[in-house]
Amino acid sequence: MRNKLVVLFLAMAVTILGTGWAQAQDDSKPASTNVPNAEYPRIHPDLRVTFRVSAPDAKKVQILPAFRVSNGLGDGPYDMTKDKDGFWTVTIPPAQPGLHNYFVVVDGFGSTDPGSITCPGYGLECSVIEIPDKSVDFYDTKDVPHGDVRIKWYFSKTTGSWRRAFVYLPPDYEKNVKTRYPVLYLQHGSGESEESWTKQGRANFILDNLIAAGKAKPMIIVMENGQVAMRAGAPTPPLKVAGILLQMASAAPPAKGKAAPPQAKTPPPAQAKPPAGPRWNDAFEDMVANDLIPWVDASFRTIPDAQHRAIAGLSMGAGQALQIGLTHPDKFSYIGSFSGVLRDFDSKTAYNGIFGDPATFAKKVRLLWFGAGVREDRFYSASKAAVEALNKTGIKAMFFETPFGHEWQGWRYDLNDFAPRLFKD
Amino acid sequence: MRNKLVVLFLAMAVTILGTGWAQAQDDSKPASTNVPNAEYPRIHPDLRVTFRVSAPDAKKVQILPAFRVSNGLGDGPYDMTKDKDGFWTVTIPPAQPGLHNYFVVVDGFGSTDPGSITCPGYGLECSVIEIPDKSVDFYDTKDVPHGDVRIKWYFSKTTGSWRRAFVYLPPDYEKNVKTRYPVLYLQHGSGESEESWTKQGRANFILDNLIAAGKAKPMIIVMENGQVAMRAGAPTPPLKVAGILLQMASAAPPAKGKAAPPQAKTPPPAQAKPPAGPRWNDAFEDMVANDLIPWVDASFRTIPDAQHRAIAGLSMGAGQALQIGLTHPDKFSYIGSFSGVLRDFDSKTAYNGIFGDPATFAKKVRLLWFGAGVREDRFYSASKAAVEALNKTGIKAMFFETPFGHEWQGWRYDLNDFAPRLFKD
Repeated sequence: MRNKLVVLFLAMAVTILGTGWAQAQDDSKPASTNVPNAEYPRIHPDLRVTFRVSAPDAKKVQILPAFRVSNGLGDGPYDMTKDKDGFWTVTIPPAQPGLHNYFVVVDGFGSTDPGSITCPGYGLECSVIEIPDKSVDFYDTKDVPHGDVRIKWYFSKTTGSWRRAFVYLPPDYEKNVKTRYPVLYLQHGSGESEESWTKQGRANFILDNLIAAGKAKPMIIVMENGQVAMRAGAPTPPLKVAGILLQMASAAPPAKGKAAPPQAKTPPPAQAKPPAGPRWNDAFEDMVANDLIPWVDASFRTIPDAQHRAIAGLSMGAGQALQIGLTHPDKFSYIGSFSGVLRDFDSKTAYNGIFGDPATFAKKVRLLWFGAGVREDRFYSASKAAVEALNKTGIKAMFFETPFGHEWQGWRYDLNDFAPRLFKD
Repeated sequence: MRNKLVVLFLAMAVTILGTGWAQAQDDSKPASTNVPNAEYPRIHPDLRVTFRVSAPDAKKVQILPAFRVSNGLGDGPYDMTKDKDGFWTVTIPPAQPGLHNYFVVVDGFGSTDPGSITCPGYGLECSVIEIPDKSVDFYDTKDVPHGDVRIKWYFSKTTGSWRRAFVYLPPDYEKNVKTRYPVLYLQHGSGESEESWTKQGRANFILDNLIAAGKAKPMIIVMENGQVAMRAGAPTPPLKVAGILLQMASAAPPAKGKAAPPQAKTPPPAQAKPPAGPRWNDAFEDMVANDLIPWVDASFRTIPDAQHRAIAGLSMGAGQALQIGLTHPDKFSYIGSFSGVLRDFDSKTAYNGIFGDPATFAKKVRLLWFGAGVREDRFYSASKAAVEALNKTGIKAMFFETPFGHEWQGWRYDLNDFAPRLFKD
């Protein structure tokens, strides 16, 4: 048994760390998202990426970019080629800058790449790779004052449980002990978590840099988990995560450089036809209004009024930000939708009729901001259409366009444009 | 291409979330460490565990407990059995309570279980499963005041880079704005990270509960990454993580309930023969003394003297705590070794000769604490032997024993015993 274990772990070391045993003899470099000392995946100067895993007994191994619309790694899947030592390798065409989710599929088993860190995505732990964006430095860790991200626990009456929030506090929050700050509530996308905006989105560094440059007001950012499934005691909705992947699967493929035409035969995304039973984010609105905001205002030096409160989110979180922001204008004056799935934006009756009276709307909502990337298909066309429809009816809304797909790089750009527009009075 | 993608993602959804498609019809329950809504792995009332993954085209699928000495899931590997739908299942014998690392091995590819969250372990993202320990509640999230964990960035001159620290601040730190607090520096093990003591170890909840019960003094806990490989510009040591796994592989298998006899033919662990080149934790001592402590004392309301500073760590971190604590008695008065690999504890010359003068030692070091679990073989025997050797020479040291292997459950118990002994003056 002892020898068996030793042999097994020698094999495991080779299996898992084998990615590091044959270092490439070119000018490629390990990705910054690799686990410590892993040599693969490697990024080439032209942004091609070489992946490498050990799977000595496998018949078929693929790199599968996770289904974002569209993934900056390309569509894939990419078949890997086996060498005599059992390592499988593939070099893919130049990738888009930004953080991309992907899987490794070994003989039908979809899992992570041992060489990469994981982030919450698709309700799973998803392998990620960061492709450098040399055109910008707004989310780098620079030599500027850094705010801290606090992991806080608070009790929610809505869910009947202790919940975790991530809270960014600007630099000098602790030095300026008499200063009170405005608050941005910032939500992740479906299948992600309260950790995502800092782990994947680098929201803290984006704000550090904006604040250091005098481009944004110092503000608090509150990040909670938007997947608040139900009231306490309600049954768990089954298979939600699979449902999300299926939704993604039913979205259109990416067009090259512009929005794709509507796909008539494509079933609509699940937002148009919610699954049976309670939705996975049913209780989030109540929780924000009744638990989260009161707790934030009691726990931090906030300016607790609508003029100093913003809400924004990405994808599923965009829908939540719009729903909560537009139906609670007494609580929020600044609203941001990053790559939302949008409906009803030409309706005078939507969101309790808030679009029915443009003059009153303008007094209550100081900013209604929509962002989307040209490569993300329906999210792009829907966002642009919403802004056009609103502007036609006299509601002021702005549209911000990025060159990206339905991925974090676009949302980083979104935050970098959105945050400086907040709390300007 | 479009249809291909849809089919592929339908397949992925089944592949990855397939763990949830056939819910067990018994009284087992999903583990608390499962990703949202994943039905597997499941824990039975007698602590047997059923694992289930989808790998329709694989020839061989195994659950492999990661090599801790010894893993509470047992030795494994456990062969899984395939059903007609391509799902592989195995139910393993009753597990030990606590958090256990494991891998899934599919046709020689070692990776994660899509149904479980991952934690930093072995320098990788490692699947974990939490087995409830009904005999204790000291690390539960209870209805008591919760401190917060702050993710902080600071600049280290030693490494020439911005570094991340996790800092626990006790409940009421922000209310008692005139109060200053003692500090515990708490280190993870090899291949883990600054996140581990909160993510795996639940250190914040352990302290919350101890403080609420009046059992421990309110204190700050600083957690940094002990794998500070080198000075800025030094070459990256290759293959360190593989080295760690190989070390683990060369350790003895667990004995049942007591320390195993020495294994003469076993090559010694790498601590006895460091790999060539700079060690992966070479610069940590300098960084703690020159960068971390000054930054902590400047950033938080600490009591900045040796009588109010403790250092402890587990496994590799135990060695670091002993090295740093015992060679800097001007900085630390309380020292804890959790499952350390120990040498030289009967030597009057070790650690700058601090053991040579028991009377002076007693004045400088108020607590020298060693913990180990009866199932962790050489870590247990070495810790016990070190305490005996020290006590023989007149150095007061205490030994704390747990029933566990070289895993987080023992280190949670360790912290729960160690923390109440700190700062008693």
